Parts: sequence; C-alpha cells; structure tokens
Amino acid sequence: MKRGEIRPGEVAGAAPDRADAALAFIGRIRTPFATREDCPRQGSPDGPVCRVEVDAPWRTGLTGLAAGARVELIYWMHLARRDLLLQVPRDARAPLGTFALRSPNRPNPIATSLATVVEVGDGAVVVRGLDCVDGTPLLDIKPERRGSQ
Amino acid sequence: MKRGEIRPGEVAGAAPDRADAALAFIGRIRTPFATREDCPRQGSPDGPVCRVEVDAPWRTGLTGLAAGARVELIYWMHLARRDLLLQVPRDARAPLGTFALRSPNRPNPIATSLATVVEVGDGAVVVRGLDCVDGTPLLDIKPERRGSQ
Repeated sequence: MKRGEIRPGEVAGAAPDRADAALAFIGRIRTPFATREDCPRQGSPDGPVCRVEVDAPWRTGLTGLAAGARVELIYWMHLARRDLLLQVPRDARAPLGTFALRSPNRPNPIATSLATVVEVGDGAVVVRGLDCVDGTPLLDIKPERRGSQ
Repeated sequence: MKRGEIRPGEVAGAAPDRADAALAFIGRIRTPFATREDCPRQGSPDGPVCRVEVDAPWRTGLTGLAAGARVELIYWMHLARRDLLLQVPRDARAPLGTFALRSPNRPNPIATSLATVVEVGDGAVVVRGLDCVDGTPLLDIKPERRGSQ
C-alpha cells in the first residue's frame, strides 16, 4: 500500500505527535528486496542471505555471536504509515484493528523477525530468513528467547 | 544493576546521541512488580495477570483482539542503560556482547515478550506471562508470528 492510500473500511487516526523516546539507528539491513513490493510476505529459513550491517560504535556488542545462532532482529519500518487504526489485509473480508495484525503500518513501526546467523564478521551479521526492504534501519539484535515465552 | 554501576569485564561506550526516529508511548503496562528487583527473570504463562493499558487515541486498534489470543508485546525498558557494549550476566563467567544477550541494557532498550490474552475491554488488554516493572511504557501489540519465523 502506498502512503496516503486507504482501502474501504480502513480507519486512520492522527499519526503520533509525541516523541516520548528517541531511537538511534545502529546500522542497516541489506537485502535483495529493493522495494516493498519485492519483499516476500514472510521470511523463510531457506530465503536469500541478508547482511545486517552494524555501525562502528556498536560492533563490540557482537562479541559472542556466532554462526548457527538464532537471533531476533528488531528494525524500524521506515516506509510504514503510523496513523492506521483499522486495516483491511489483502486476504481478509472485514477490517481488523492494527493491534490484531502484523501489518507494517502501526503507531510505532517496529518489526521483530527471527533469523539464523550464517556468519559474523567485518561489522556485519549475515543471516537468512528476513523479508524487509533493502536499507531498513536496524534497532537491535538479540538471541532468540528460550522456551514458550 | 543500578544505573552507573558496572561489573568487572563490562565495557560501556557512549550512550546514543542521535534521535533517528521518535517513539510515541501508546499506553502503560501495569504489573505486580514495583521495582526491577521484584521482576521475575522471565515471564511465565501461569504468572500473575497484568494489565496492558492502551491510551484513548489508539483503542480502536484493539478491534478483533480476543481472549485466548497469543500476542507479542513490545515495550520500552525506560530504566535500562543504553551505553553497555560488553556485559557480564549473573550466571556467566566471561563478558558477552550486548547483542549476544537479552539483557534490558542495550542501545535501544526495546523488549519483546509473548503473552496470552485473558480479557480485552475498557481500553486495556489483560494478559499473563509478563516480567516487566509496573508502569513500563507500551509501544505495540501484535499477534504472535506464525510458524518458525
């Protein structure tokens, strides 16, 4: 969906007008997906390799991360709308609330995605399993949570 | 760990000095844990009920969310340090990089947590399975992702 476009049944409120906390982009994610239309609906463990580039001040934080690890990547969906309250997904008949959907369009467009580390080195983590657009700003990398939680 | 305290082997860089994007707190999470010391190490599906309060402008976004749903809650760990690059967890012998740990202390202190919805209504989602401190700022609610991704 392009910015400004809205489907029948969708409801937009105001975009957030507050800055309660500030995010620092700590790197960028390089993927083969040049536009949102090129992105798969969901990442796949056998998808193409993607390069999670970490900027110099944060690289020491990669210590201990190794090939084979399962990680949770947190990134900022910079192309998303922040004002939608009800949305009509492609495969749904009725509008659903933004908090009942994993749509990128949400008041704080933060994505969480699980991926497997292929290689770590040179200020970057190479992974498989992402579905985001090339150049997406990186917010965080964490080990996958353990257990059902 | 209190602010300003650092364990042997830990390394702090500069806290982020950039504001690349602004977050809006869309509500607060009410838990029985008054301080960080009171919080369990990890939430449990049979833990106490917690109340995820959503502020008025965003409540329409709850449409379609119902009891029994598994949700991913995203929140801001407002008490965390943002400058640690290497950390020594309580149960570890050697320092590990922040990105190899799920510690709250990280450049962008965003938490993701899975929980089960007990009840939705009155501008709040009641859940079980959280481990955060009372008053934690809420950033987002999404359905749990499907499949291994």
